[in-house]
Amino acid sequence: MLRLGPPVKKPVGGEFDVVVIGAGPGGLSAAMYAARLGLKTVVLEKENKPGGRAALAPIVEDYPGIDRINGEELAQKFLMQATKFGAQVAFGERVVDADFSGDMKVVTTHKGREYKAPAVIIATGVSTKGLGVKGEKEYFGKGVSYCVVCDAPFFKGEPMALIGYDDHAMEEAVYMTSIASKVYIITHGKKIEASEAHMSVLRNNPKVEIYEGAKLKEIIGDGQKVTGIVIELPDGTTKTIPVRAVFISYGEVPSTEIFKKAGVEVDERGFIKVDTHMRTNVPGVYAVGDVTGIGFQIVVAAGHGAVAALEASKHVKRLKKKMAAK
Amino acid sequence: MLRLGPPVKKPVGGEFDVVVIGAGPGGLSAAMYAARLGLKTVVLEKENKPGGRAALAPIVEDYPGIDRINGEELAQKFLMQATKFGAQVAFGERVVDADFSGDMKVVTTHKGREYKAPAVIIATGVSTKGLGVKGEKEYFGKGVSYCVVCDAPFFKGEPMALIGYDDHAMEEAVYMTSIASKVYIITHGKKIEASEAHMSVLRNNPKVEIYEGAKLKEIIGDGQKVTGIVIELPDGTTKTIPVRAVFISYGEVPSTEIFKKAGVEVDERGFIKVDTHMRTNVPGVYAVGDVTGIGFQIVVAAGHGAVAALEASKHVKRLKKKMAAK
Repeated sequence: MLRLGPPVKKPVGGEFDVVVIGAGPGGLSAAMYAARLGLKTVVLEKENKPGGRAALAPIVEDYPGIDRINGEELAQKFLMQATKFGAQVAFGERVVDADFSGDMKVVTTHKGREYKAPAVIIATGVSTKGLGVKGEKEYFGKGVSYCVVCDAPFFKGEPMALIGYDDHAMEEAVYMTSIASKVYIITHGKKIEASEAHMSVLRNNPKVEIYEGAKLKEIIGDGQKVTGIVIELPDGTTKTIPVRAVFISYGEVPSTEIFKKAGVEVDERGFIKVDTHMRTNVPGVYAVGDVTGIGFQIVVAAGHGAVAALEASKHVKRLKKKMAAK
Repeated sequence: MLRLGPPVKKPVGGEFDVVVIGAGPGGLSAAMYAARLGLKTVVLEKENKPGGRAALAPIVEDYPGIDRINGEELAQKFLMQATKFGAQVAFGERVVDADFSGDMKVVTTHKGREYKAPAVIIATGVSTKGLGVKGEKEYFGKGVSYCVVCDAPFFKGEPMALIGYDDHAMEEAVYMTSIASKVYIITHGKKIEASEAHMSVLRNNPKVEIYEGAKLKEIIGDGQKVTGIVIELPDGTTKTIPVRAVFISYGEVPSTEIFKKAGVEVDERGFIKVDTHMRTNVPGVYAVGDVTGIGFQIVVAAGHGAVAALEASKHVKRLKKKMAAK
């Protein structure tokens, strides 16, 4: 059950110390830390609820300190803590433009509102389109998942499928090898684009079967849980493989276009480059969580958020001093 | 109240996939993630209980997802989760030597036991000696604290003292400026050794008073809470300053000597150098939490632990493949 938080002020633009973009675990942790450090903090979230991808998890059992919790409920806890310390959160407010050229950064939302601050923390995560195959939606949370590390341990000792072709997908397949009884890799029509480091581990493991070029046609089940997949091989024949879980690591895109345009450096996959203190190449601009391509875990994003807020706090103090001196 | 965990296996050396050194939040998060990913994992902890510095906190209100909890209780939760997924934890086992020269790293404890693994995660934190001044122990948790970010918000709007002289201490003083009504900086006999970036912020803030060279003589209170400090000025006179909280950021040393000898790079203050994936300069050796000098927050260490475990998992798979090929 969702718990109601304290009344949330509705920000409508203006000047802040810190603007956080995205109300997932990274953004809300950053907001909590920033607000607790006395900074005027606003969080802009395009959706109407907190949590981002984390809110989709039916069960989270790998967040240290909390034995087992629903993802949406965990997101509500993050939200309540952030607002308790004074962070303002604007839901349904999508960022469409960013100007990071001056000391005061300007972030514009689709409502035409401008949010200005000396520090901006980008926590926009990745968007997952999914494959749109039959059974994918029906069995989401019943064997279909978008995060191996999070969910594969729920199916320990069972056969599993991994749908993907790039290095991140193969990395996830490597994790699966010590958890699953069998790992079937389906590249869904693509050629493999992954490092030899991962591929040699996978090719040499007798548990792993790789179907390069094959397409996932359907995820089948008994209504309660996944029981298998139907794939189409490159020669046009179909094959049914019994699996208990299907991990889709395909078509994930970091949400960074706007920031790239504003001068923030990204890597070849579009993830924002940061240092160990979550600083981007633009002074005063930080990035945390999935959008950095690091970890893809709730606790990793939360840790990033804390570090970014601490850095932002120092930056804001220095900048205010500089502006006062003028 | 402490809760009893599941029966903990008592490791006595041997071969593992991952050896984690230190059972604070970083080490236990790493152990939980590693064990959940199917790796044979052992944690070596010199103390007889988990949590490291985190266990000392009377109240933690800045761990995202948990509104308010005692530090020791939070540490127990971390421990239970790690052991639930199969990590073994050896308490009272102090690491005295490390050999990171081969593919199989060897860690030796004071009991003469050898723990071997292809991956080692260093989570040894920092040791804080404290000052040993009158009132320090008596008022610990009643106004005396060793972490500004963690505890200053409990005393919002009150006058506070910061005991320290180095860059980390001055960074903490900067955080205090937006929380405290007054910030008194006492360098406890030392000259200031901090960056101009921090010092110019502090010197220009009318809330801040700096007593360079002064010594803290006593922390005074009414039995229940801190009410002030007595300092001795360089000219030998004493002064009493009313404060509600005293933050001691003095004499902290990262526990890295053994690892430095084993070839792990540290920075000028002794903190282990890592990249954003918690890798040190030695392949297969990772460092997380306070020992990296990043954040000094429970959630930061926990996030680090997850990232290090994910990296260690890939490293272990690659190495096993390499060894099998021989």
